[in-house]
Amino acid sequence: MATPLSMDLFSEENLAVVLYGQNDLRLERWPLPDKLENDGICGTDLHLWRQAQVADFRLQRPFCLGHEPSAIVMKCGSNVHHLKPGDRVAVEPAIPCLKCDRCRSGRYNLCPTSNKQSHGLPNSDGSLRRYYTHRADFCFKLPDSISLEEGALIEALAVVIHACRRVKIQPGDSVLVCGAGPVGVMAMLVAKAFGSNRVCVTDIKQTRLDLAKKMGADHCYWIDLSQKDLNAEDRAAHIVEMMGRPPDITLECTGVASSQSLAIHATEHGGRIAIVGLGQPSNGIPLSTMTMKEIDLIGVCRIKDDYPLAIELLESGKINVKPLITQRFAIEQALEAFRLLASPPDNDQSVVKVLIQYNNDDD
Amino acid sequence: MATPLSMDLFSEENLAVVLYGQNDLRLERWPLPDKLENDGICGTDLHLWRQAQVADFRLQRPFCLGHEPSAIVMKCGSNVHHLKPGDRVAVEPAIPCLKCDRCRSGRYNLCPTSNKQSHGLPNSDGSLRRYYTHRADFCFKLPDSISLEEGALIEALAVVIHACRRVKIQPGDSVLVCGAGPVGVMAMLVAKAFGSNRVCVTDIKQTRLDLAKKMGADHCYWIDLSQKDLNAEDRAAHIVEMMGRPPDITLECTGVASSQSLAIHATEHGGRIAIVGLGQPSNGIPLSTMTMKEIDLIGVCRIKDDYPLAIELLESGKINVKPLITQRFAIEQALEAFRLLASPPDNDQSVVKVLIQYNNDDD
Amino acid sequence: MATPLSMDLFSEENLAVVLYGQNDLRLERWPLPDKLENDGICGTDLHLWRQAQVADFRLQRPFCLGHEPSAIVMKCGSNVHHLKPGDRVAVEPAIPCLKCDRCRSGRYNLCPTSNKQSHGLPNSDGSLRRYYTHRADFCFKLPDSISLEEGALIEALAVVIHACRRVKIQPGDSVLVCGAGPVGVMAMLVAKAFGSNRVCVTDIKQTRLDLAKKMGADHCYWIDLSQKDLNAEDRAAHIVEMMGRPPDITLECTGVASSQSLAIHATEHGGRIAIVGLGQPSNGIPLSTMTMKEIDLIGVCRIKDDYPLAIELLESGKINVKPLITQRFAIEQALEAFRLLASPPDNDQSVVKVLIQYNNDDD
Amino acid sequence: MATPLSMDLFSEENLAVVLYGQNDLRLERWPLPDKLENDGICGTDLHLWRQAQVADFRLQRPFCLGHEPSAIVMKCGSNVHHLKPGDRVAVEPAIPCLKCDRCRSGRYNLCPTSNKQSHGLPNSDGSLRRYYTHRADFCFKLPDSISLEEGALIEALAVVIHACRRVKIQPGDSVLVCGAGPVGVMAMLVAKAFGSNRVCVTDIKQTRLDLAKKMGADHCYWIDLSQKDLNAEDRAAHIVEMMGRPPDITLECTGVASSQSLAIHATEHGGRIAIVGLGQPSNGIPLSTMTMKEIDLIGVCRIKDDYPLAIELLESGKINVKPLITQRFAIEQALEAFRLLASPPDNDQSVVKVLIQYNNDDD
Repeated sequence: MATPLSMDLFSEENLAVVLYGQNDLRLERWPLPDKLENDGICGTDLHLWRQAQVADFRLQRPFCLGHEPSAIVMKCGSNVHHLKPGDRVAVEPAIPCLKCDRCRSGRYNLCPTSNKQSHGLPNSDGSLRRYYTHRADFCFKLPDSISLEEGALIEALAVVIHACRRVKIQPGDSVLVCGAGPVGVMAMLVAKAFGSNRVCVTDIKQTRLDLAKKMGADHCYWIDLSQKDLNAEDRAAHIVEMMGRPPDITLECTGVASSQSLAIHATEHGGRIAIVGLGQPSNGIPLSTMTMKEIDLIGVCRIKDDYPLAIELLESGKINVKPLITQRFAIEQALEAFRLLASPPDNDQSVVKVLIQYNNDDD
Repeated sequence: MATPLSMDLFSEENLAVVLYGQNDLRLERWPLPDKLENDGICGTDLHLWRQAQVADFRLQRPFCLGHEPSAIVMKCGSNVHHLKPGDRVAVEPAIPCLKCDRCRSGRYNLCPTSNKQSHGLPNSDGSLRRYYTHRADFCFKLPDSISLEEGALIEALAVVIHACRRVKIQPGDSVLVCGAGPVGVMAMLVAKAFGSNRVCVTDIKQTRLDLAKKMGADHCYWIDLSQKDLNAEDRAAHIVEMMGRPPDITLECTGVASSQSLAIHATEHGGRIAIVGLGQPSNGIPLSTMTMKEIDLIGVCRIKDDYPLAIELLESGKINVKPLITQRFAIEQALEAFRLLASPPDNDQSVVKVLIQYNNDDD
Repeated sequence: MATPLSMDLFSEENLAVVLYGQNDLRLERWPLPDKLENDGICGTDLHLWRQAQVADFRLQRPFCLGHEPSAIVMKCGSNVHHLKPGDRVAVEPAIPCLKCDRCRSGRYNLCPTSNKQSHGLPNSDGSLRRYYTHRADFCFKLPDSISLEEGALIEALAVVIHACRRVKIQPGDSVLVCGAGPVGVMAMLVAKAFGSNRVCVTDIKQTRLDLAKKMGADHCYWIDLSQKDLNAEDRAAHIVEMMGRPPDITLECTGVASSQSLAIHATEHGGRIAIVGLGQPSNGIPLSTMTMKEIDLIGVCRIKDDYPLAIELLESGKINVKPLITQRFAIEQALEAFRLLASPPDNDQSVVKVLIQYNNDDD
Repeated sequence: MATPLSMDLFSEENLAVVLYGQNDLRLERWPLPDKLENDGICGTDLHLWRQAQVADFRLQRPFCLGHEPSAIVMKCGSNVHHLKPGDRVAVEPAIPCLKCDRCRSGRYNLCPTSNKQSHGLPNSDGSLRRYYTHRADFCFKLPDSISLEEGALIEALAVVIHACRRVKIQPGDSVLVCGAGPVGVMAMLVAKAFGSNRVCVTDIKQTRLDLAKKMGADHCYWIDLSQKDLNAEDRAAHIVEMMGRPPDITLECTGVASSQSLAIHATEHGGRIAIVGLGQPSNGIPLSTMTMKEIDLIGVCRIKDDYPLAIELLESGKINVKPLITQRFAIEQALEAFRLLASPPDNDQSVVKVLIQYNNDDD
């Protein structure tokens, strides 16, 4: 359980994890605003650190990383009625305008303003700092039963929920999840919460699959890269045999072309594949096979009103994300956390989701 | 207007265009069944001739080409009530089982039986012969106002209608059509019939664009391959500028990776792209951009109950496909027709859709 | 063509049509804001005048009627970039908050704020006055080819477009329109613009059907109320026979229970019926038949981003609403216009859509 | 657990429950075909007995009732590969043609043939007899973990699943279920299996609500008919208050106009209501309110490929229907079973679902 933080915290330093350029990450003291938090480190953060860009986002100035925060409210604006100081919240990092055509059509996640100013993507400062401000209608109060630590995983959970909604998983669907990292495991959990009784997870690392199995995967398929004679079509056939029938839905969480190809070969004719993982600028995939099978590839961009369901799934106990949290680092040790994630030890099961904490008393 | 054929035709030889292997196409005499017809030559036929395979279909024995027929009924089974001898029909080449799960779910185009026995794909003999039999509920009577020649274009038109239905073109959508061959031009026509007032067509040949423009395209964009410094993103920006706003929907009819990439860069965030054209086994495309823009790539496989609308659109005059028919060959000259299509003269506008005819009196 | 109005108009009186209570309509001088216009009188206005309420809206204070305006811009706020003084605009009367859950989900027409402050419904003053102000992003610039008179019909046209979008008319659908008043005739026009080639219109008055036929209806069915032995099921059977097959889609524009029942009996199994017309607090309809036929009754509330398509359909010439405008009254004679609509002469074809004008030079 | 029946059963009499006319139900010996079973008595059966018609189905000759069977296979046709003698099956009573337009469109539940020959509806003999034949592809094998008794509830469960699919319940939706009879309770169970965490059930009998609560309803609302000053709108307001927010989805299972009106008043703007219960030929409901709230009324007709999910939900333990089975009668006492259902004792919780059994050893 998260214990409310004492107010003298406000007098502490506002340490921030700031990216200056490719491979140049620094810990700095920033001015003090209004929140403090737990924070997850996401693959996107790692990517930004190492490449100084992700997808179409390129670093233009040093900026503070972090877009998976939970936090405790310090102050509220006068028009905010659903929150009060001391409330624990999950923070949705993107801030759409709510006025443009895309927002009006019900897709604020595609808002150009939001794309430009999403906290934690270049070039809008993120949440890897002790204190900051955020628009109240994108802060979601956590019920007592959800800890701040779990709250730090809500952003990733909401991304996965958005994918499952976009790809329209229905009760009874069989589902393939490509990739057993934190996002893949959450995708497996959400697919089951959406009513699938048959979820198969793939990965190139057996240790990751062990965790997925422990957390509820019905089937696990190890992509043994040493078997060089197997192509994507062969592996897809193995998966279909293992599952008993082709998956109706696939959640592709790796962003790797060979896995995307496997997804197309495995998925049932007329099925759908959500492209959750981001990868290279260009990926070679069998588009002719995809269209001859009348499969749809579904784009999924971030989050659109998905926090409430994420909180509801945690609160009801339908989903438990706690086993995914394997390490915690104080903000002062944030750079070590990044190094651990970038070069995990051999048995990588021991490093899944790494949290940055801002106070010893938390949880 | 098609003139009913005299019955002594039945005493004629049943000439058939038979593919024996890669680049080995022969004209043969086959036994006599019940129909006779006009027939279009499709890119798939060309592909089969040159490669002896298309998509996942591989030649296993000599077989008769042809899957775009119109025909005149010679005989009917005793349970057939909607047709009678002398009726002119458009023939849907695939024969689904109507019993499997995919058929029961309303998607007979994905029926495994249909995939195996679709007339004109290996290894089920097609319609490029004077006489053959076909299941009556996949023969659609042509009204008097539609000629047998137009009837031979209905299969291709139905494929395009299926794509426009799958990709859900709505009135007011702006539409990009990649490729100005026969399929691309029909896609432009159907997009307009579906309510788009703003359709832009692309091609690498200006002569094809001239025809598209003449037939109603609102904008044409020439992909000048000599401009080697322009990438797909640059060209996409030009198209968006030309159209005034990004296309809501794109119909990709080329199957070429660079055009598919252009489609992803041009299409509006949250838009949809139908993958109509078939191409290489693997195509390199910017999947990360596609998913960050939350674009859906929609698979479209052949035809599903699309002949009635194709006939209705021709009959109502909303669509006119006649200008697409540029050459007619008698069945005896069928091999010449294939050679012309494979190596058209420089000004390729003069070769768009080539028909094989079975009787001089027709139309 | 609308001629831009001279600026000295601003010095004129701001005459307003104000409803004080049931059957108590007065013409008053109101203070001067920023727009001036043409305006249609809608059935809702008539209803308000006679009942002092419509649906859940009840009169609480004297208020100005009018929610179908076109106008000329007099002044703009400093942040308005898409409009300038002199522009002719169609005005969307409802003003949603764009922040609540319903707005965020893409359905601003259901915004509670909008429901409360929609201009021209109790108790928010409407547009039946010479000058007033309106939020700029709900004013849509008219192209030169659309007159201010046509502009006054855009609100009703947008309502019908919204219904056709909600009920998902697809190309090739057969469509039944119940009611041949202005809304019914526009519904017929929009159904055809959405790709239906087979639209049947019903009414209890033959003169209205004559207009519908003249404007493009494929079939017209006269509901002869003197034939008392015919029930809704009988009449539905007649309509199906007339149309050749049951309508896939029905647009019910009368709000009358007997017509709603007819709609349920006529519509194809698995079809959809849009409930466009408003009627009594309780209507007796055959719900068991509706559900055994697996028909959906689709609710349609006002307008949601439908003005752009309305303008596009008028501009492209796909829809021509001019024949619907049968009378024009100067604002000074507005009360006479209401009286004419409430008690039209015997041959009611001569009174369809009545406009209130604010300047003699207009159009 | 169901014990396989010995083959000498085949030598027994084939007792059948036959309806001769209104209130004229008889037990007769019929010839012997191939299956034997458990069977549920449905409200439709009661209705048929008492009225000799239901919806548009009218009795034309004496016929055998029963459309909720489970059974043990005695013999199979030579082409049947998924079943063998001794297999226990759930039987889907309707037999569509799979060839007509409605079947081809994926909606075999609307097949006119099926409507005419659905077993157990006039005038096609049903399953309330010891032995009968049925088409193999509409018999679904029960896994070992599902008893024949549970199997007899699969037809009703499939009807409810079909409703939940048609009305598109999504994870996180709040759901109102009107009616706490067997169908209502199953609707509550399926709504929760589809991901709702907030289901409220209504009924006019407190004892039924007690069972619903015991089986998992989050809220129960008693419609106290003695409170005559409360109208549907008042009660709807109470329900919304109880649930915390209006239901996104309502499953109306009573067929009663006052409950349908309550559903319209309670359901959230933009929500959907499935019309599951059948009622009078005409029901008075507030259609204007429904359309002003942009609510959709969704028709649901029987079953369309819903048995597999019904079996999966039972097998996975997500749904437990056993508490609904309150009485069992041997086929010889079938008429008593009907009398009990028609006139249950005062405390009606003790009579929910009544099964007819064909062998003492069963289960």
